[in-house]
Amino acid sequence: MAEELVFGHQNPDTDAIVAAIAYAYLQQQRGYDVEAVALGEVNEETAYALAHFDYQAPRIIKRASDEVKKVMLVDHNEPQQSVSDIADVKVTHVVDHHRIDNFNTTDPLYYRAEPVGCTSTILWELYNELNVAIPVKIAGLMLSAIISDTLLFKSPTTTPVDQEAVKSLAKIATVDYETYGLEMLKVGTNLSSKSEQELIDLDAKSFDMAGNSVRVAQVNTVDLDDVLARQTALKTAMKDEIVDKNYDLFVLIITNILNSDSEAIVLGSANGQTAFEKAFSKKLVNDRVSLPGVVSRKKQVVPQLTEAF
Amino acid sequence: MAEELVFGHQNPDTDAIVAAIAYAYLQQQRGYDVEAVALGEVNEETAYALAHFDYQAPRIIKRASDEVKKVMLVDHNEPQQSVSDIADVKVTHVVDHHRIDNFNTTDPLYYRAEPVGCTSTILWELYNELNVAIPVKIAGLMLSAIISDTLLFKSPTTTPVDQEAVKSLAKIATVDYETYGLEMLKVGTNLSSKSEQELIDLDAKSFDMAGNSVRVAQVNTVDLDDVLARQTALKTAMKDEIVDKNYDLFVLIITNILNSDSEAIVLGSANGQTAFEKAFSKKLVNDRVSLPGVVSRKKQVVPQLTEAF
Repeated sequence: MAEELVFGHQNPDTDAIVAAIAYAYLQQQRGYDVEAVALGEVNEETAYALAHFDYQAPRIIKRASDEVKKVMLVDHNEPQQSVSDIADVKVTHVVDHHRIDNFNTTDPLYYRAEPVGCTSTILWELYNELNVAIPVKIAGLMLSAIISDTLLFKSPTTTPVDQEAVKSLAKIATVDYETYGLEMLKVGTNLSSKSEQELIDLDAKSFDMAGNSVRVAQVNTVDLDDVLARQTALKTAMKDEIVDKNYDLFVLIITNILNSDSEAIVLGSANGQTAFEKAFSKKLVNDRVSLPGVVSRKKQVVPQLTEAF
Repeated sequence: MAEELVFGHQNPDTDAIVAAIAYAYLQQQRGYDVEAVALGEVNEETAYALAHFDYQAPRIIKRASDEVKKVMLVDHNEPQQSVSDIADVKVTHVVDHHRIDNFNTTDPLYYRAEPVGCTSTILWELYNELNVAIPVKIAGLMLSAIISDTLLFKSPTTTPVDQEAVKSLAKIATVDYETYGLEMLKVGTNLSSKSEQELIDLDAKSFDMAGNSVRVAQVNTVDLDDVLARQTALKTAMKDEIVDKNYDLFVLIITNILNSDSEAIVLGSANGQTAFEKAFSKKLVNDRVSLPGVVSRKKQVVPQLTEAF
């Protein structure tokens, strides 16, 4: 059994899974006794990437403190996005590309954050700084994560470093990243087989905003109308969650990855909905609103909402 | 006027001043428009180092938002240790070696923390990673900061990287770091000219511990009895501060840097004093207690107190 566990956030996306794998491997080369694990099942996009590069999904944990005293976090820091018993273990390392919030430690630690498009981009830099060779399969996974987070460089979170990383990793993995990347993204938008409950949970994160519990879920698609046709059932599922989890605001962003436009369904308390309207200077009509050009929760939704609250 | 300001914590010690200078220089080489400033007067030890390496002290600011929209923090992250209007500016970069606490951002940022003895050690690593040559004077200042923070490697916060950094910087600055370092530390312990009010403020930091406002001050000396002879007046000064600033607990640690033993004077609410006793499993006698081997606030006092609260 490893001394420390490495994991990404709940409802793992491709970066949460891949960053855990890539960071665990890097730390193992440096002498750390670590194991990459996941806080949930891999989604279809991640499963496609893992299968393509012939790599096994990490095992899933529900608690950490039964196994270890120390953990390393990737692709998140906010405790409500982490393992349920995060308060009972010591965080020794963090590699992340999100805002820092609600993350408090009693001791100094290693923390590496950069405002780039993907945690795997920072890991690519770390491999280079530490002069550790990136294995072919892990290189393939890392470029998958960067393509996933940046929507093949279409997201405004994309930086030149992300593009440089993908090009460099594509050489190691010997893959045509544009063809492969588009194929992978399309697999991730295969929503027809999923229930409304699954859709609102697929890529959802919780945030504390000035004492308000805010849930922001995102669904990527190549056809907005396909998803919006299920609006009534989606709203029912969201309302159930709001009651169940006591959210003040639940935002579901449905993003067309081909043209970078989004529609949002916004439910919650009157106060929560008002904060949303203030954040985007837009009126909700039947709990709906168009958000043209909005594709990044991290850059185009969370800061604006936090400010409004 | 620079676009961004770079500064260390209030009541600056040598690392807070030097890390601002060294990080500002590094960022300037990378194209950032930044200026190093300080949140207070330099102490005698820092003045000695600056004079020795012929470098000017940074100008002092009381507020940041009148001048800039963005700042970079070194050697601290907790807002109560930062500039008074920290909430009104955006933190874009942090380089630090302390715990992370109460530090919340709305946007992603650059954050580089390592559990090493000194911020200047991390900066030495950054200069190397980024292939930027360290100017001779700045190298001298950086080794001064590392010697200051690690008490010439006697503090338990010292890591092999700190020692490696000092030795490498000493070659650049062409200085015998042991002789110079001891001389610098001794200058820092020249306390006779200082009032009790000055002594308890010389190297003092505020912490939020489970909602309690805790002040931990430290005074380094080569003769404990010299300082303890002023106990009555020190306690009066501490009590005035407690009333004035509403501290729940005020701990003054007096450290003999030659043998690494400390005495603590502990004042505050009954609840605060009880937390202290619990943290160290020791009874206070006349608000005093011996703490043999305790020299590091960060490693040997703050985590224990936080845990107890």
